[in-house]
Amino acid sequence: MSNFGFTHLRLVNPYDVAFREARSAIRAQHVLEGAEVFDSLAAAIADCNLVVGTTAASGHRDLHSPLYRVEAAGSLLREHLAHSPAALLFGSEKFGLSNDDLSHCHWLLRIPTRAEHGSMNLGQAVAICLYELCRDAAAVTHSFDPAPRASAEHYERLTELLLDLLARSGYTNELTSHSTALKIRRLLLRAAIPDADAETWLGILRQILWNVKQTAP
Amino acid sequence: MSNFGFTHLRLVNPYDVAFREARSAIRAQHVLEGAEVFDSLAAAIADCNLVVGTTAASGHRDLHSPLYRVEAAGSLLREHLAHSPAALLFGSEKFGLSNDDLSHCHWLLRIPTRAEHGSMNLGQAVAICLYELCRDAAAVTHSFDPAPRASAEHYERLTELLLDLLARSGYTNELTSHSTALKIRRLLLRAAIPDADAETWLGILRQILWNVKQTAP
Repeated sequence: MSNFGFTHLRLVNPYDVAFREARSAIRAQHVLEGAEVFDSLAAAIADCNLVVGTTAASGHRDLHSPLYRVEAAGSLLREHLAHSPAALLFGSEKFGLSNDDLSHCHWLLRIPTRAEHGSMNLGQAVAICLYELCRDAAAVTHSFDPAPRASAEHYERLTELLLDLLARSGYTNELTSHSTALKIRRLLLRAAIPDADAETWLGILRQILWNVKQTAP
Repeated sequence: MSNFGFTHLRLVNPYDVAFREARSAIRAQHVLEGAEVFDSLAAAIADCNLVVGTTAASGHRDLHSPLYRVEAAGSLLREHLAHSPAALLFGSEKFGLSNDDLSHCHWLLRIPTRAEHGSMNLGQAVAICLYELCRDAAAVTHSFDPAPRASAEHYERLTELLLDLLARSGYTNELTSHSTALKIRRLLLRAAIPDADAETWLGILRQILWNVKQTAP
């Protein structure tokens, strides 16, 4: 909750030992110290006009309520939270929400887990639901600005240096072979060198070449 | 991992006590029993041609590598996993990945946590990353088929029954008042009764009306 900026934690008849231990959570003290304890679910959700339950069920149980995947539930909850308070209900680690609890819910959500292993760790389920509420769909399309690649001029100088070096090192023996030059140029192009790294690579090749020339017999 | 169907767990110098305890995880035994242990990160990732690191950093540390939000990282990883193996690296609960570890990564991802509380619980961070890999963007738009509402005919019968009941109960005293009828009709329309519930509501009103008629003086 603290990671994603949610502060209103409400607990219904919490297990005191676990709750007191949790209070030591680093950097989340403000959430736990502000937590409100209720002795009934009805009291805990009284001021909310949308109540959403979480369930691992994908059909075994007769749910009586609409069931949405968390991807869809997230956008509906976000819309609602823009103007009104909503409650997102989680059951106990062991049993989840009871049928009584579920009857208070306008609708339910589930995380798309495998059918063979549907039930999740409580903390992980909460983290995923709150992440989905904070998720920025625009971040998917806007983030992929690949680093600009080195210019053709840089590539050409790299190719020349590498060809010189390879000839002097005995890797290629026909210095003038046109097809060797083409192979090396294509080899370098496939390596996708970022523009910001071009000078470093040129420096490396120059240094090796200088050293090879110095030690040449 | 088991919840989302990921099975290849690789551990580099794990803390044995914690690892042995984790092996008792219900329904995730197949993941833990199949886990491979390595004594160096290089050995653990040797057969992967994409290595992605996770970090809580949002700029404090000089990262030297491209850093994407998990929303964007998820789609890039998914594309890669369609044809080649990738490694997703998580550091220890306490310290995260070291600079040595990060130098093995092609790029890094971060979960969009609050700047004031960036560092996440390890299990929750893993859950969110794997959820993002399984997330179905289409589920957002395809899930909201609201239940069809009761027909105008049902609404009209409900309005009539309720008007009759309210008049007999003394809630309205002018049975013939046209504006009262309009108010009640609008009141019911705003209640958005699902089609599947219309007969139940009609039955309830009829029963109450019958009872009121029986007990009328």
